[in-house]
Amino acid sequence: MRPQTLSVIGFGAFGRLAARHLRPHLPLSVCDPAARSNDLPMVDAARAARADIVVLAVPLPHLEGVLRAIAPHLRAGAVVIDVASVKVEPARLMLDLLPDHVEIVASHPLFGPASAAGGLEGHGIAWSPLRGRAHRLLAAFLRARGLQVIPTTPDQHDRDMAVVQGLTHLIARSLSRLGPLPQRLATPSFTLLAAAAAMVQDDSPELLATILRANPHAAAVRQRFLAEAAGVAAEV
Amino acid sequence: MRPQTLSVIGFGAFGRLAARHLRPHLPLSVCDPAARSNDLPMVDAARAARADIVVLAVPLPHLEGVLRAIAPHLRAGAVVIDVASVKVEPARLMLDLLPDHVEIVASHPLFGPASAAGGLEGHGIAWSPLRGRAHRLLAAFLRARGLQVIPTTPDQHDRDMAVVQGLTHLIARSLSRLGPLPQRLATPSFTLLAAAAAMVQDDSPELLATILRANPHAAAVRQRFLAEAAGVAAEV
Repeated sequence: MRPQTLSVIGFGAFGRLAARHLRPHLPLSVCDPAARSNDLPMVDAARAARADIVVLAVPLPHLEGVLRAIAPHLRAGAVVIDVASVKVEPARLMLDLLPDHVEIVASHPLFGPASAAGGLEGHGIAWSPLRGRAHRLLAAFLRARGLQVIPTTPDQHDRDMAVVQGLTHLIARSLSRLGPLPQRLATPSFTLLAAAAAMVQDDSPELLATILRANPHAAAVRQRFLAEAAGVAAEV
Repeated sequence: MRPQTLSVIGFGAFGRLAARHLRPHLPLSVCDPAARSNDLPMVDAARAARADIVVLAVPLPHLEGVLRAIAPHLRAGAVVIDVASVKVEPARLMLDLLPDHVEIVASHPLFGPASAAGGLEGHGIAWSPLRGRAHRLLAAFLRARGLQVIPTTPDQHDRDMAVVQGLTHLIARSLSRLGPLPQRLATPSFTLLAAAAAMVQDDSPELLATILRANPHAAAVRQRFLAEAAGVAAEV
């Protein structure tokens, strides 16, 4: 199988980033009723569904609706890939709602417009092939772009991300609510901490909700972290 | 005034770092009843007090005792500099306990053995001259070593550090209590956060107590951060 066409459904911050990196390699169309592209063909969901590779870059709350809209139009042997920041729920939805004749990969690119501003080289993508074999070809393509393709299961992914993204976003949000951070006096460790917070500061509310709410392990990790922090504070 | 001799009192992690960077420039002796140096002269407190520049690198709980021990032996025109991670309490103690004929600088080097492993260049030192004029000469010397000398007051320093060090250490401690952090799947922002935590992981319990307890603003900042974090968690 050699894919000839590609579509990106959802033209938000990540959809744009994906389109920018994918368009040199395959004819690409974009589907997003609420956004537009200056120089890429915009198509409706039915048309986008007829590509060989369909990348789903919509906010998680829209995923089920998009899957239902594209399901009747997907071609045999097509590959559907999502890029949501959680994997258990998208994996379940894709396996439930997509026809048996399409292949499925649940993925999570561990970077975004801010962190990958300098290029993809060295960034990671969590990778859970759910159905079919085309994932090998796609993983090889992504590796050739400099990405580290990291195999995982949706559940393991969500467990790790409950810490990785759940706590980073919790800490970043909490810091930003404290008001302006000290600038003149800073230690190297605080400078790293502030840089970590700044990197996720512009993430959309939808992404934040996905990371903090749609991850089945996030609440428990958050409560443990807050309990440990309260313990440290109390011991002092 | 051109200082001829230097002593470092307290030969812990920071005292060693200071000695390493200062010894090429002035004859240096070290005072620490509980540590020894392989190749620097070890002296008692009375002898250390007779140097032209006396650097106090003892844990904060020992500072008062050391000041009382050296006070009778300090020479007129000598400069005493502390390097503690809080500044209000050391400033008060030094002004109260040191004779009028010595000059005083309260300082806080914003780096340590881990962060300055690659050298001093570009690191900062918070700088509060409390008495006398020799601080100008010393600041020029430190600038020539590549340090940024950042003037501040003890109170402003402690306010900033309640956030800068207080929260970094609180977060680092809390993360380490969660157990091993995910390694395979990590975002760039989490990698920065984990690096920030790792950088302060080996700080001594005395340093941690100073940062979290002896800073008069630390408890309030910590409580605000925890309240904000609980708020973020609750809103989710």
